[in-house]
Amino acid sequence: MKIIKTIAAVKKETRKLKGKTFGFVPTMGCLHQGHLSLMEQSLRENDVTVVSIFVNPTQFAPNEDLDSYPRDLKKDEKSLKELGVDILFFPDVKEIYPGGYSTYVQVEELYKVLCGKSRPTHFRGVTTVVLKLFNIVAPDNAYFGSKDAQQAVIIKKMALDLNLDVTIKALPIVRDTDGLALSSRNTYLSGPQREAALCLPKALRKAEELIAAGLEDAAQIKTEIVKELQQSKLVEIDYVEIVSLNSLKTYERSEGTMDIDVNNTLVAAAVKLGKTRLIDNFILGEI
Amino acid sequence: MKIIKTIAAVKKETRKLKGKTFGFVPTMGCLHQGHLSLMEQSLRENDVTVVSIFVNPTQFAPNEDLDSYPRDLKKDEKSLKELGVDILFFPDVKEIYPGGYSTYVQVEELYKVLCGKSRPTHFRGVTTVVLKLFNIVAPDNAYFGSKDAQQAVIIKKMALDLNLDVTIKALPIVRDTDGLALSSRNTYLSGPQREAALCLPKALRKAEELIAAGLEDAAQIKTEIVKELQQSKLVEIDYVEIVSLNSLKTYERSEGTMDIDVNNTLVAAAVKLGKTRLIDNFILGEI
Repeated sequence: MKIIKTIAAVKKETRKLKGKTFGFVPTMGCLHQGHLSLMEQSLRENDVTVVSIFVNPTQFAPNEDLDSYPRDLKKDEKSLKELGVDILFFPDVKEIYPGGYSTYVQVEELYKVLCGKSRPTHFRGVTTVVLKLFNIVAPDNAYFGSKDAQQAVIIKKMALDLNLDVTIKALPIVRDTDGLALSSRNTYLSGPQREAALCLPKALRKAEELIAAGLEDAAQIKTEIVKELQQSKLVEIDYVEIVSLNSLKTYERSEGTMDIDVNNTLVAAAVKLGKTRLIDNFILGEI
Repeated sequence: MKIIKTIAAVKKETRKLKGKTFGFVPTMGCLHQGHLSLMEQSLRENDVTVVSIFVNPTQFAPNEDLDSYPRDLKKDEKSLKELGVDILFFPDVKEIYPGGYSTYVQVEELYKVLCGKSRPTHFRGVTTVVLKLFNIVAPDNAYFGSKDAQQAVIIKKMALDLNLDVTIKALPIVRDTDGLALSSRNTYLSGPQREAALCLPKALRKAEELIAAGLEDAAQIKTEIVKELQQSKLVEIDYVEIVSLNSLKTYERSEGTMDIDVNNTLVAAAVKLGKTRLIDNFILGEI
């Protein structure tokens, strides 16, 4: 595996292999099986797989966990080598955002809802760095996890709107044996918090079962999830939202119905346990 | 010359010629010798030259001249064929901005000054459409006129920040025999307005001469230009600005000096004659 730190070197390396197909997995490191499943898929579908590890400052607000975000390069390197990843791009912050950096990309509307409500500058940072990384790596396919469903929807929309040559693929959430969605931020949780966090996947699983059994009213589904999340005193609800998958619009009573479209719906929730914010969701349809 | 109306067809056409160098000149049509000089340069420097004609709605404010902007496709087509341009991309508005279009690119700070003061949404529209066109055409070199100096500076910054593979080239202003900078909007001017408009290049030429003779104080240079522009009652000044070329920052007395950097300065002015807004400038240094 080649480890590359500069943009110029990545461009040189990827451009000289023109004709090969490139798969790309952008990450912030501290890799877990959710990330690795993306790379495995990329390795299956492309001649060359490029992974980036970059804790992107522009997607963190000043009060968020940029400094404490978990980093473990040695372990990540080992995982990537074992998988057979071809290139690891591991740039410094100054390489990505040199002095005087000024250009930002925004997907209007989609960035404001769900996680964007409590993190209003987050997705601008995500789309900007992902667009830059796409321009640097020039991939044919790029892989994103569905735990960050809003992120995948937004990036897919950006790629469509900006006429990029990359295909965006959103792969299923990978869960721990107890059901908790894998996340680098799970390492922040204390024992009791970890225990309490399980109400998140449990609430969503229950909602999924209710829908499978025929419940279609968005308000009722939401109520069931909220009820479940309120079982634990350690859990503070950030949001529970049931939205149309690609527009991220909530179902409105004013449209005559609050029945969900069972082929195009995202049911998503975010909770806080102490300072740690966790998200989870399930998708009816395909991003 | 191939005339292409769809994004898919341009991509197919340009991607199949991989290995060749591509020059690209994005325009809004109604081509004059200023545009043609860009194409001539592209034809000299590249294997294939692509020109786009697209009157871009997102760079016009609702009160501006989108509907009346001059269009003359037959004449443009003839000019492009005679020059030897290889591909004309001439898309519909719906092809570039399909329903639900949402993604915008902004170069912070640079978009707010000079023309951006009276046209606050203008450069967001320009950077967005130019980025889209770059992604569609995938050029090695792209050519812009220096009459729109701020546009060229902003696009160069966008290309740098977003790690694009395109080289931005800003070519000199082309003027009519009487000195007026060529512009598609010159067709809006009445006889007396056209006559009055000449004070714009005249004022700038005078300032250039004063600088050549040793005048370096930005405030004094500005005063001289304003004095000249105030000669005509038909001319209303929008702005006269003397700024650092690449940052577009005005020279501030608080920095201890208002002396200009004679190797990195843009002297720019915009005036209105009736409803018609004209811009002109001269550059010390290189964009």
